[in-house]
Amino acid sequence: MKATIYDVAREAGVSIAAVSQVINGKGKISEERRQEIIRVMEMLHYQPSRIASALTGKKTYTIGLLVPDISNPFFAEIARAVEEQGHQLGYSLIICSTENKDERVERYISLLQQKSVDGIIIGTGIDNKKMLKPFLDNETPIAMIAREMPGLDVKTVIVDDYVGGRMAAEHLLALGHRRLAVLTENPKLSSSKERIRGFREGVELSGGELPDSRIKACGDELVKEGKRLAAQLLQCEDPPTAIFCCNDLLAIGTLQAAKQLGMKVPSDLSVIGFDNTILASVTDPPLTTVAQPTERMGRTAVDRLIGQLDKAYDGELRTVMQPNLVVRSSTAAPL
Amino acid sequence: MKATIYDVAREAGVSIAAVSQVINGKGKISEERRQEIIRVMEMLHYQPSRIASALTGKKTYTIGLLVPDISNPFFAEIARAVEEQGHQLGYSLIICSTENKDERVERYISLLQQKSVDGIIIGTGIDNKKMLKPFLDNETPIAMIAREMPGLDVKTVIVDDYVGGRMAAEHLLALGHRRLAVLTENPKLSSSKERIRGFREGVELSGGELPDSRIKACGDELVKEGKRLAAQLLQCEDPPTAIFCCNDLLAIGTLQAAKQLGMKVPSDLSVIGFDNTILASVTDPPLTTVAQPTERMGRTAVDRLIGQLDKAYDGELRTVMQPNLVVRSSTAAPL
Repeated sequence: MKATIYDVAREAGVSIAAVSQVINGKGKISEERRQEIIRVMEMLHYQPSRIASALTGKKTYTIGLLVPDISNPFFAEIARAVEEQGHQLGYSLIICSTENKDERVERYISLLQQKSVDGIIIGTGIDNKKMLKPFLDNETPIAMIAREMPGLDVKTVIVDDYVGGRMAAEHLLALGHRRLAVLTENPKLSSSKERIRGFREGVELSGGELPDSRIKACGDELVKEGKRLAAQLLQCEDPPTAIFCCNDLLAIGTLQAAKQLGMKVPSDLSVIGFDNTILASVTDPPLTTVAQPTERMGRTAVDRLIGQLDKAYDGELRTVMQPNLVVRSSTAAPL
Repeated sequence: MKATIYDVAREAGVSIAAVSQVINGKGKISEERRQEIIRVMEMLHYQPSRIASALTGKKTYTIGLLVPDISNPFFAEIARAVEEQGHQLGYSLIICSTENKDERVERYISLLQQKSVDGIIIGTGIDNKKMLKPFLDNETPIAMIAREMPGLDVKTVIVDDYVGGRMAAEHLLALGHRRLAVLTENPKLSSSKERIRGFREGVELSGGELPDSRIKACGDELVKEGKRLAAQLLQCEDPPTAIFCCNDLLAIGTLQAAKQLGMKVPSDLSVIGFDNTILASVTDPPLTTVAQPTERMGRTAVDRLIGQLDKAYDGELRTVMQPNLVVRSSTAAPL
């Protein structure tokens, strides 16, 4: 027989009002007591009618995560951290992936809202902030992760992409590289822009330069496109001795291009990635890469989002984390 | 101003009834006309109240996907294929990941149902079929992918795991290996059982044997656990010359263990994986692995599920696809 709110209250030894407060996320109730009531609900398989709750504007204890490409391990690792932290705080997670198709962004944000999530974490670059307007108007709390939307007043958790780009440049310059090139994903993304700006400034501060012709922007299929464009760069008249790839998937494409052209990494070509996903540690050779604190970013985005839901946190709008350079075997002094 | 059903009908040049039929997935309407009406709805940003639809039992054009671990590239690649095929057919996808925690399976299936998805694709091993009963009773269509639930009457799309295991054994035996071992994830999963059964029968048919002590089952953190258990196997008295890993993540752990012990792959140790994820092509050395037709499996699962929704398909219950062996550089004759 289906458990009722009465069964939960009796089993937990609390009032029906207390159970109701837990269900609706309202009223004052200690965290310990809340957890105990949730435990009893789970034990009894008690399910409040959340669709009905949604219509009356109550909490559903669900958060949404929108990512551009779930098959990019960076976002899969973000999703894992978000799920784990959400779980710790009593929230379930539903994930939507736009598969790098811009036209699906709006549809999926809208879908998440229709599914009555309490808040949405967005890891997808959004070109046009008008797209978010309906959701902001509707007061669905939003947090951005790994991407920034300048001019929009939403909680944002990012790595310092500029500093990451600088780190990559300084590492390659210190090894003695002067002929440098960059592969980036969509250059409109805030993260891409900042990584390139940091890299370029690092180069310029050392007296070098990075002409625009040495920066190639890839389409959506990052490994394949990275391979194609790296091959172009490596076959031009004055080929680079080192390539900074704005994420690990592009770096893998670059390793594949070098291999196909019979070039050895790192002796013929240095390659540096960004993200430090699981891929970076398994490639041949293992990738030097700028690491993002992926797990910490995922957890923090959840905290910031839920802080808004609970109106408990009124502090920083942007949380900027420090990247760090992980040196493996894909970079060395040029021959 | 928000678009109404009247605006959609006027713009599409159809009756309000036709638009309503598209929204509710009822009535006879040609596919071409349906697509045109959907296009107009998207253009006008028209949103029917899907929560209200859910309460009245109408279609929401959303499907759910439940996976055990979205940071395993195999499931991320499945998710990508499911999203793409769903999109082609007019469905949005919401993904839930249980992060390998059994106790989250029931919660997430229940959540997907509360979110009024039209159907659920499940890639998570489910120990106890009682867990699915409420959803079957509720007639929410379900399809299983990459995992099987014997004795349950649901559409299932799998690879022939037994044949995959046989292929791995035959490849290693043909190279001359006789001292073999196996690393598996949860041995209760149908996929694990079948891969091991196929591998063992391959070995036994050649006159060899595979004692239980040579089969190690890993916990949830597959790379880390694979590394730990491979190291155990490689340091025992009569170490294997080849290890069959029941997925690519375990194979990566095995490569790491060999490296740490100063062993060369494939001269000192052959390693064979399963899945043929992006990881297999980038490791050092690149992995020989049993490939699953991941994309085709994802697309087919969507077709099977939507076939149930439309009551249009009444055919095969189990779709079993053929694996194929991809030989790269992690396997060779023993020294």
